[in-house]
Amino acid sequence: MEPVIKTAVADPVLTDRNFVVKGYGAPGGLFGGKTLELMQIEREQPKDDEVMIEVLYCGVSRSDIHHVSNRWKNTIYPCVPGHEIIGKVIKAGAGVTKYKRGDMVGVGSIIDSCGHCEPCKKGEEQYCRGPQGATMTYNGYFKTDGRDSNTFGGYSTHLVVKEDFVLRIPADMDPAAAAPILCAGVTVYSALKRWNIKQGEHVGIAGIGGLGHIAIMMAKAMGAYVVAITTKEEKRRAALLLGADEVLVSENEAEMQSHEMRFDYILCTVPDSFDINPYICLLNWRGVLVSVGLMGAYRQATDNMELVRMGRSVAGSLSGGIAETQEALEFCARHHILPQVQMINIQDINDAFERVKDDEVRFRYVIDMQSLK
Amino acid sequence: MEPVIKTAVADPVLTDRNFVVKGYGAPGGLFGGKTLELMQIEREQPKDDEVMIEVLYCGVSRSDIHHVSNRWKNTIYPCVPGHEIIGKVIKAGAGVTKYKRGDMVGVGSIIDSCGHCEPCKKGEEQYCRGPQGATMTYNGYFKTDGRDSNTFGGYSTHLVVKEDFVLRIPADMDPAAAAPILCAGVTVYSALKRWNIKQGEHVGIAGIGGLGHIAIMMAKAMGAYVVAITTKEEKRRAALLLGADEVLVSENEAEMQSHEMRFDYILCTVPDSFDINPYICLLNWRGVLVSVGLMGAYRQATDNMELVRMGRSVAGSLSGGIAETQEALEFCARHHILPQVQMINIQDINDAFERVKDDEVRFRYVIDMQSLK
Repeated sequence: MEPVIKTAVADPVLTDRNFVVKGYGAPGGLFGGKTLELMQIEREQPKDDEVMIEVLYCGVSRSDIHHVSNRWKNTIYPCVPGHEIIGKVIKAGAGVTKYKRGDMVGVGSIIDSCGHCEPCKKGEEQYCRGPQGATMTYNGYFKTDGRDSNTFGGYSTHLVVKEDFVLRIPADMDPAAAAPILCAGVTVYSALKRWNIKQGEHVGIAGIGGLGHIAIMMAKAMGAYVVAITTKEEKRRAALLLGADEVLVSENEAEMQSHEMRFDYILCTVPDSFDINPYICLLNWRGVLVSVGLMGAYRQATDNMELVRMGRSVAGSLSGGIAETQEALEFCARHHILPQVQMINIQDINDAFERVKDDEVRFRYVIDMQSLK
Repeated sequence: MEPVIKTAVADPVLTDRNFVVKGYGAPGGLFGGKTLELMQIEREQPKDDEVMIEVLYCGVSRSDIHHVSNRWKNTIYPCVPGHEIIGKVIKAGAGVTKYKRGDMVGVGSIIDSCGHCEPCKKGEEQYCRGPQGATMTYNGYFKTDGRDSNTFGGYSTHLVVKEDFVLRIPADMDPAAAAPILCAGVTVYSALKRWNIKQGEHVGIAGIGGLGHIAIMMAKAMGAYVVAITTKEEKRRAALLLGADEVLVSENEAEMQSHEMRFDYILCTVPDSFDINPYICLLNWRGVLVSVGLMGAYRQATDNMELVRMGRSVAGSLSGGIAETQEALEFCARHHILPQVQMINIQDINDAFERVKDDEVRFRYVIDMQSLK
């Protein structure tokens, strides 16, 4: 018998307001492991402004792995990951106007926000400054529903989300391959758009994985001269096939030196701690490096002399708002950009996590959720 | 007998093209010390596009100390510092159109640049990308005069500079107090202007010394709500007198925490290595920290999580271009902003260096060059 995972509500009572679905999550806790296993999740029926989505595909993001292993010390178990969700609307609340049964939709990394703070008013809900911040699609333990419950993500058969946090998948887009756009894609899109990448600019994309491979295609579509920067010589060919104009192998010191001062902009998607200083030296006068992958400290202290002497900047950037995510989907559809995905079954998720950690996937795993039916 | 300091030219021959002036510099070299002493300097007569300036006042900048002690490993001795120079034009080349004998003028940290690169064309000569970069007012060993000579700064009685790199001192401005605007002042002005500080913005000025005290006055004049951030409780009163709306003592952890997420912009003028992370936490969503004082590595590696989760940026910025320096002078004149200076004689310069290192000056030493006559 599969364990029924309880929410943090004391004595949950299944009524006609609730239902139970299958999911894959980490039980965690004192006696649980950090690997994912089949479990049952309680969800609520859609309220007036919510839709129920049958999940068809879900991307496997590196944050899923970090959350499951409590790397950021904020995981509440059980943890059911997944925030690159594609599915079909199967039920809509009475007040829902944007979506109807049968619509192909997506859900990204957030499912709610205060709606009143300055970031929310400017469409940057990911930075919500409300009392509890944005509600994350999973491990969103601050869910503002009046109950003290955690949120569970897309590694499950169904999901219920406010229509305002649901994205429309363009009709001509392969829904399976669209999944990674909902987090990886919008993260790099937002960082490229915010710094206004223009025709002819010299743009570096460092780290050619789930985020970086989409960023190469997007920066090319924006008209930039794109240099893929990778530690791995063996990614050279793949980067060129994705459209990079040039490949720079960062382990090669002479090659790095020959690229110094050449870049208007570098988008760094490297997730592990690294020394940022050699990348700063690649920036031209007034150049900007935006680092979206690393969620922790750099390996070395930044040499401010290199920032000062050429007026350079280093920034961070977090995914994108809802309107911007929709824009990213439409940008991809318009420019025929599709993430390169490898489909897996949910039963292979623990192996897949290991292969993601070892950087073996080219470039994103997507779970075919039919395998959970 | 005073030593005649030779330029790098072999066997300098004093002709009617050259002249010798008194200066204070560090002989350095194998047998020389790093303290300043009276010396004689060879200078060239003004060319067609140059003016000869009689130096009246010269600010004492922390970079002077760093250069004399070869902290940045790029000092060529003898080193005659000084790049906050106020003086009178006493001779003008035949082609000079902007200045005439008797004009009160200034010279900042650069005296030449290529004029053709993108930064030069955009009026940011300080970032000149020509083959040898901008020529620094002193220790500008790359001077592009066809001779392999070093440049000597304002700790001397006279100076010869291209008119295009000379600033006009506004008529109603006290020239002695104006000196620090030429480097300290324009450095903070440029950093405030570039990030477009606006009415009502919440601005922090960290480090209340030569640069910071001017920045408080400028940011107030731009309409910002200004918080002075200092490690020293004893600077609280001075910061309030300068116009700060509030003072935050950075050693006080509770006070720092209560200011988290409050700042749209922080200008950091701290010259010594420090941990940037607590300052990053003070920034609001999309906030920017610009660090202009530290010419080296931060004490700790930057935590990129704090940049990512609020879309924050950290930048460096280097002084200002010539047009911007003129603008800074006029901005100060218009808003009645004058650096707070303490006048010294050139003979006291070595003591003054020690007091600057110990952060004892309030807030800038200016040398009265009459003392060298």
